[in-house]
Amino acid sequence: MDTITGLILFGHGARDPRWREPFDRLAAAVAERYSGPVSLAFLEMMSPDLQAACLRAVERGAGRIVVVPLFLGTGGHVRRDLPALLESASDVVGVPVTAAGAVGEDSQVLAALAGYCLRCVN
Amino acid sequence: MDTITGLILFGHGARDPRWREPFDRLAAAVAERYSGPVSLAFLEMMSPDLQAACLRAVERGAGRIVVVPLFLGTGGHVRRDLPALLESASDVVGVPVTAAGAVGEDSQVLAALAGYCLRCVN
Repeated sequence: MDTITGLILFGHGARDPRWREPFDRLAAAVAERYSGPVSLAFLEMMSPDLQAACLRAVERGAGRIVVVPLFLGTGGHVRRDLPALLESASDVVGVPVTAAGAVGEDSQVLAALAGYCLRCVN
Repeated sequence: MDTITGLILFGHGARDPRWREPFDRLAAAVAERYSGPVSLAFLEMMSPDLQAACLRAVERGAGRIVVVPLFLGTGGHVRRDLPALLESASDVVGVPVTAAGAVGEDSQVLAALAGYCLRCVN
């Protein structure tokens, strides 16, 4: 049997609960097209945190976990905070937990952002 | 003659200068396809700030300015900080300065984000 990969979409978090609406929509859209466990996780101010999301993914059968940073830029949160969280989550849950590049580094995401900016003035 | 619209792409800012690389790429991609003034501006830790970017846009001929929040979620920065900045920038530069919705609220941006997330596990 193939290993099930859990997919965790990792965002910053914010005080205002309305902030997470597009994140919830994104997770729902991804879950609709992916057969493995999908969930959100947040760096701060919202739950679940990364470790709790990883534990839940393993409970749902994940033998490895890929974390996608929902950050436009790759600064301290993605370069320093996230690797430390990945390492401790992997130790706790006992399966490999790795990260993809930040969403803003993807050329298709960048093209969609550019398209939106242009639609705002045209 | 039609009023020239300046387009300002407004991001959070970060300590790490590498954070802004996708923002620079985005601004370049937008500027290539838009005839009016285009620039980045940042809430904190990077320059220019919104007011400086607005002044520069007006110097370059803008008679109105549209600000696109490069934020995935609409939390305190977009709901509270940005409106205050728009108002004071508009007072200083003497032309209307308005904001579009946050990029993460756009369905095409959300679709691109979902596509990236799925490519990370497929």
